[in-house]
Amino acid sequence: MHIGVDVGGTNLVAGVVTKEGEILAKAKRPTINDKGANAIIDDIKTIIAEACDKAGLSESKITSIGLGIPGPVDNDSGKVIFCANLPLTNASLADMLKEKWNVKIHLLNDADAAAFGEAYAGSAKGCANMVMITLGTGIGGGIVINGKIFTGFNQIGGEIGHMAFIHDGKSCNCGAKGCWEKYASASGLIALTKEQMDIDPASTMWQIAPDKHLVDGQTAFIAKGEGDASGQLVVNKYLNYLASGLSSIVNIFQPEIITIGGGISNEGDAMLLPVREMVEKSTFRHPVRNTEIRIASLGNDAGIIGAALAGVV
Amino acid sequence: MHIGVDVGGTNLVAGVVTKEGEILAKAKRPTINDKGANAIIDDIKTIIAEACDKAGLSESKITSIGLGIPGPVDNDSGKVIFCANLPLTNASLADMLKEKWNVKIHLLNDADAAAFGEAYAGSAKGCANMVMITLGTGIGGGIVINGKIFTGFNQIGGEIGHMAFIHDGKSCNCGAKGCWEKYASASGLIALTKEQMDIDPASTMWQIAPDKHLVDGQTAFIAKGEGDASGQLVVNKYLNYLASGLSSIVNIFQPEIITIGGGISNEGDAMLLPVREMVEKSTFRHPVRNTEIRIASLGNDAGIIGAALAGVV
Repeated sequence: MHIGVDVGGTNLVAGVVTKEGEILAKAKRPTINDKGANAIIDDIKTIIAEACDKAGLSESKITSIGLGIPGPVDNDSGKVIFCANLPLTNASLADMLKEKWNVKIHLLNDADAAAFGEAYAGSAKGCANMVMITLGTGIGGGIVINGKIFTGFNQIGGEIGHMAFIHDGKSCNCGAKGCWEKYASASGLIALTKEQMDIDPASTMWQIAPDKHLVDGQTAFIAKGEGDASGQLVVNKYLNYLASGLSSIVNIFQPEIITIGGGISNEGDAMLLPVREMVEKSTFRHPVRNTEIRIASLGNDAGIIGAALAGVV
Repeated sequence: MHIGVDVGGTNLVAGVVTKEGEILAKAKRPTINDKGANAIIDDIKTIIAEACDKAGLSESKITSIGLGIPGPVDNDSGKVIFCANLPLTNASLADMLKEKWNVKIHLLNDADAAAFGEAYAGSAKGCANMVMITLGTGIGGGIVINGKIFTGFNQIGGEIGHMAFIHDGKSCNCGAKGCWEKYASASGLIALTKEQMDIDPASTMWQIAPDKHLVDGQTAFIAKGEGDASGQLVVNKYLNYLASGLSSIVNIFQPEIITIGGGISNEGDAMLLPVREMVEKSTFRHPVRNTEIRIASLGNDAGIIGAALAGVV
């Protein structure tokens, strides 16, 4: 049986996953990020054992463990290369886990894990060539080519959120300027919403979020739904940013499916339909076979399923 | 023996190519583009026969023919999907050639052919994961993954020149706005050069190109070499555009090698060294293994070698 662990900045979640991509049981605990890598690994060991217990599975039946990490990893050495939000930089996670379970350990980036999960068991089930983007604080990118996660020759590729999108634009945490994620992530939408609220004090957005700290990725969408012109302006501008980067993905990868995950994907058709139309107009088109854009279907489970199975199926 | 044909807007060139990537003989003729697909195929048949003759090779020894086409192709049906500069749209090139030689016919995009040639026998020889960009009127992109040309699920991917680069920027022939090639192609450099000449009537660039029709991709580089401030400004701005798009390629693909071809690559270190430095500063870095940026080494032969071998090795 396969174990997938989503090593998140807020929670650690472990799942017992069948080869078919079904989660039999999960266990969770909040991430402690001020006590070093050992504390995190100890908690991971605990929740793996708990998940096995819930699934009625003897730990001896574990055949592989995959960990989705919020940062670049080196799966050959079993080490995390860099982790901004957790004390895992340079940690030898694979070795640390092998002390308890001497099975195949697979490390991968969390966005890659989510992409693989959606490709294997979710919105892009059975699709061998797909791209997933996750709209959150940044934009996570996961690329599946010929049924495998693609990360380049050094395992750190797939950083689609860091395409140069507006030359010399907003400064990004990565050190570059104008990265796509500065504009088309949830954070990008929130920044855009706040800017427009400053411009239009009469906007309905001020009723939805009377304090700017309350602005989230839904604020402008709700205002737009209520007929607010500024809300509409923000949503249109944001979806244009989103569609423009998706068009780059189509022109470069021509994937069979692009799956969009993250909180903003909950907007559903209000996001999907205009984006599809814009992408169709600004990409190279095949006479018959073209990329389909979908909403992710597995939520946070995608990362658990993908982490469990990316290295073994 | 393998035949590779570069179907260019100006010339048709056929080469007899060994499995090792050596061109034994070439034959060439100007492209006639006002008499339909049949006239072009007739000329292709003629130069293939000429190249075989020059190589002392009986035509019966031809085992495969590959054609590099300036547009998207469908290799399954053997048809050209679209060709802007030649009357080949929808032409069944594979069938037309098979009337004469009943061998394996492979159609591919010319930028893909060049990339495969450089990966197989040129600047990236032996490299299984590389990207080639060709700086010309536009930017041609060719992606090699696991030793094979990557073109997405519908064969028309790899259009790296059409990444959204400056949101809502200059209108591109593709229908979108702000594509990378509008800024970082040779045409982009020429446009930038002319703009700066208008701003600075005292620039040395006016001596190098007294009439603006004489401006080419070298003008600003020459002026910069002579200490002209406007020349330097143009070159810096252009190399910044170039490096910024290359950074996107690194962040997404983390290829072992990026090879730069096209006329501007003749600038050599004047282009390569600053671009390498800029890319290094604005990309995700692996502690040990990082993308190397090189200049293409095979010139126009890359497309012939790649067309000949992409489908057979």
